[in-house]
Amino acid sequence: MRADLAPAGAQLWPKDSWYVACTSAEVTDQALGRTICNERMVFFRGKDGTVCALEDFCPHRGAPLSLGFVRGGQLVCGYHGLVTDCHGKVASMPGQRVGGFPKTRHFPTIERYGFIWVWPGRADASNPAALHHLEWAESADWAYGGGYYHIACDYRLMVDNLMDLTHETYVHASSIGQKEIDEAPVKTHATDREVVTSRFMDAVSAPPFWQMALRGAGLPEDAPVDRWQICRFTLPSHVMIEVGVALQGRGGYEADDALKASAIVVDFITPETETSHHYFWGMARRFATEDEMLTDTIREGQGRIFAEDLDMLEQQQANLTRYPDRRLLKLNIDAGGVRSRMMIERAIAAEITPI
Amino acid sequence: MRADLAPAGAQLWPKDSWYVACTSAEVTDQALGRTICNERMVFFRGKDGTVCALEDFCPHRGAPLSLGFVRGGQLVCGYHGLVTDCHGKVASMPGQRVGGFPKTRHFPTIERYGFIWVWPGRADASNPAALHHLEWAESADWAYGGGYYHIACDYRLMVDNLMDLTHETYVHASSIGQKEIDEAPVKTHATDREVVTSRFMDAVSAPPFWQMALRGAGLPEDAPVDRWQICRFTLPSHVMIEVGVALQGRGGYEADDALKASAIVVDFITPETETSHHYFWGMARRFATEDEMLTDTIREGQGRIFAEDLDMLEQQQANLTRYPDRRLLKLNIDAGGVRSRMMIERAIAAEITPI
Amino acid sequence: MRADLAPAGAQLWPKDSWYVACTSAEVTDQALGRTICNERMVFFRGKDGTVCALEDFCPHRGAPLSLGFVRGGQLVCGYHGLVTDCHGKVASMPGQRVGGFPKTRHFPTIERYGFIWVWPGRADASNPAALHHLEWAESADWAYGGGYYHIACDYRLMVDNLMDLTHETYVHASSIGQKEIDEAPVKTHATDREVVTSRFMDAVSAPPFWQMALRGAGLPEDAPVDRWQICRFTLPSHVMIEVGVALQGRGGYEADDALKASAIVVDFITPETETSHHYFWGMARRFATEDEMLTDTIREGQGRIFAEDLDMLEQQQANLTRYPDRRLLKLNIDAGGVRSRMMIERAIAAEITPI
Repeated sequence: MRADLAPAGAQLWPKDSWYVACTSAEVTDQALGRTICNERMVFFRGKDGTVCALEDFCPHRGAPLSLGFVRGGQLVCGYHGLVTDCHGKVASMPGQRVGGFPKTRHFPTIERYGFIWVWPGRADASNPAALHHLEWAESADWAYGGGYYHIACDYRLMVDNLMDLTHETYVHASSIGQKEIDEAPVKTHATDREVVTSRFMDAVSAPPFWQMALRGAGLPEDAPVDRWQICRFTLPSHVMIEVGVALQGRGGYEADDALKASAIVVDFITPETETSHHYFWGMARRFATEDEMLTDTIREGQGRIFAEDLDMLEQQQANLTRYPDRRLLKLNIDAGGVRSRMMIERAIAAEITPI
Repeated sequence: MRADLAPAGAQLWPKDSWYVACTSAEVTDQALGRTICNERMVFFRGKDGTVCALEDFCPHRGAPLSLGFVRGGQLVCGYHGLVTDCHGKVASMPGQRVGGFPKTRHFPTIERYGFIWVWPGRADASNPAALHHLEWAESADWAYGGGYYHIACDYRLMVDNLMDLTHETYVHASSIGQKEIDEAPVKTHATDREVVTSRFMDAVSAPPFWQMALRGAGLPEDAPVDRWQICRFTLPSHVMIEVGVALQGRGGYEADDALKASAIVVDFITPETETSHHYFWGMARRFATEDEMLTDTIREGQGRIFAEDLDMLEQQQANLTRYPDRRLLKLNIDAGGVRSRMMIERAIAAEITPI
Repeated sequence: MRADLAPAGAQLWPKDSWYVACTSAEVTDQALGRTICNERMVFFRGKDGTVCALEDFCPHRGAPLSLGFVRGGQLVCGYHGLVTDCHGKVASMPGQRVGGFPKTRHFPTIERYGFIWVWPGRADASNPAALHHLEWAESADWAYGGGYYHIACDYRLMVDNLMDLTHETYVHASSIGQKEIDEAPVKTHATDREVVTSRFMDAVSAPPFWQMALRGAGLPEDAPVDRWQICRFTLPSHVMIEVGVALQGRGGYEADDALKASAIVVDFITPETETSHHYFWGMARRFATEDEMLTDTIREGQGRIFAEDLDMLEQQQANLTRYPDRRLLKLNIDAGGVRSRMMIERAIAAEITPI
């Protein structure tokens, strides 16, 4: 593997898959332009509120449709007024008969769990049933808060990052890092559906972020705890991490809800270009779910922590770009990332040579 | 036509032609560096005040001559003092015999109408008689005000923009746009000399910019008017647009001067590189010509309006660069731009294969 | 020679040589990342304070080691904690057996004269004895002050600049320039070891910088002086310039120390990339050596003067990049630069075809 970068021109991500394009809140009465998997897209809401995704290119003169406006659930080009409907069909244009106008490419979308999901591949292969079920996003037993970062690196470097939390000790030393992470053995296994990397740290002190969470959960923040991290990668590029601390010796991961603060770190990693991606991060928790101030506090803390990764990832990308032929190490701690990349590679190969 | 962009390496503009390089006021006692049609040029005034244009490259060590200074009508290189005269001949250099020094390339120039015009092609083919006559620039019956924008797009996208004013309804909705523009039919015809696209809108309300002009002309701003737009493209890339409003039913374009506010929108569009150009815009008017405050008001209004085009044009360029193989539509409203591009193509072909 | 730029891919600098990488003060208890001769390097101090230079690339996942931290004289990667020793050997990593880990490339260094010197070529060819002896940096008879600039041009354009001080008349007209520089003949000779360009100007007025120096030396600032400039280029790319003024007719360069203000302009010019370099400049003087306020005054004056070169050099580079096939003139005043480049070329050739 050459510096973990694919040869120029190679397909770097599965296309026939659901990616998070934006949050529901980002698409209101205005159009939103965003590049997903190297496709320039525009997102807007049709008459019934359904979100549509089209190629962000007016067939008339090539203006970005996202510079236009929405009128009656149709998208009006802001340059010369060509009107496109939710399916990419030209509905009208002042003074023109538009019957023969070419259609604009349409991308399937689903709005669910507070996100707009888009299928950048073959529209006729799109399969709503393939969208992951996210229990935490639908159940009243969970509270969620999250944010967004644009990051100038290959999306797979973020997958690596999240499938090996050893880096917390170094990158996040003052919040969630602790030396016991390094010391605890990590286990990785893969199925057809997912790659799972887990680490259990018994009888440790809670680092600052988890002290805050213990307080939020109404538990003593200075008590010794059992801590766990279970990272789950699923296609195309989602990483859900079960994390938490339980009062020591009360069952750890299996402890009763009243004795632990547990959560899922949510990571949707959507390729933008070969060397950039959209990062939708958040945390879904099962404790103090009605405490909105705690949701804000966690969001701010998590935002600060994830911002610490940005510089490292972008400079790692710069180094790999500079030395594209350099082989990297694959240690046990890297197994999660390595197996996730293999799953990605298999998905891409299956698209290129459909079975 | 692939996304209306020429293949890489193709000649994109006529070279044997007069382009506006700068305003007279931009070349004072200092040299001015500017790239015109991909040629780096330096402009300065000789002893008699005549403007000279040379390649902006000192034959000694390649420093830009525009970083130097003018002394006695000659250009002194700011690095080691090589002195070049108005024709590109090396006049002197401290401690050197300069007889055998190579000449710096010289570009023909004309100063007229408040602008410096430059001929970026073969100097021996330059023809002062080929410079357009601009009556409004010389007659006391007209007042003129204008400005400059640097725009990061192919100069021909600006020609398209100005030869199809349908876009006013969308891009300039709050100033000169109105729905009747869309609704009025547009006519285009071409001669050997020019491409003309015209549109007449009878019995309409004047939009805000024209209300201001009516006030300036001493006419009632809320009266119904007949409005016209006559766009004239001439080589290499000038667009003069006759625009105006007359009190309704009094002859429209042909109405008596006292009953109308009429003007020429002046657009000199000078290629800088393949994907950028210099845009000299202005307005010449026949009403209230002595009202200098009105000149300022119009300049500010026009500057704001033309700034609205910048983002659209630059993002259109980005889209065309991203999708270079995409074919665009050519509608009736595009005929002005399409015909102007054909005239440009013929001029380029004639230069490549001189008759 | 095409625009004095080498063909793409050609080796542009000797590699088996000592270059100034940074000042001693730049490497404290933190690591410093810097690119030298196109090699990304990280500098840090080992347990005994010795400065080490390694390739700035962690063998684990390619993160820049310079984002990490120093612990006990070893460099800890800031991503996953791989620990590298001063020789590039992996010392440890949490939870890993590192015996088989690849070494990180190590670059020989020497700390001397207040600078860290690095050898970017073959480590086994490094030769501490080849480091120039700089008397002014070690002797109490001299005082030194200096600074650093990053400049976006080929390092050889800076060598040209310093080996032809004719430019002072133009670029530094208000500080060290004077017309007599242009008028005085320049002599260049080269040996195996160095290229020397010298110029002597007798019975001139001291320009502002030298008036300040005369005051600092306790001499009358308005007295006529004999002035000299002796530029010495040595490999790989150092230029030391003996400069000074002596009271007129008292021996000039050879005058007694009490009758002159003399100094060495120090220039270490370290390639960063093909079109950028690190410029370490300073002045070593033999007068008023204990006057630290004078050291500051000179540093500020010299900083201002050298900043005047930046724009010219960077725009010269832009011009040469734009016109790569253009041949430049080689005048008598350019002999210093031309000969220095020949010495550089011979050194590169000797590396490529070792004798």
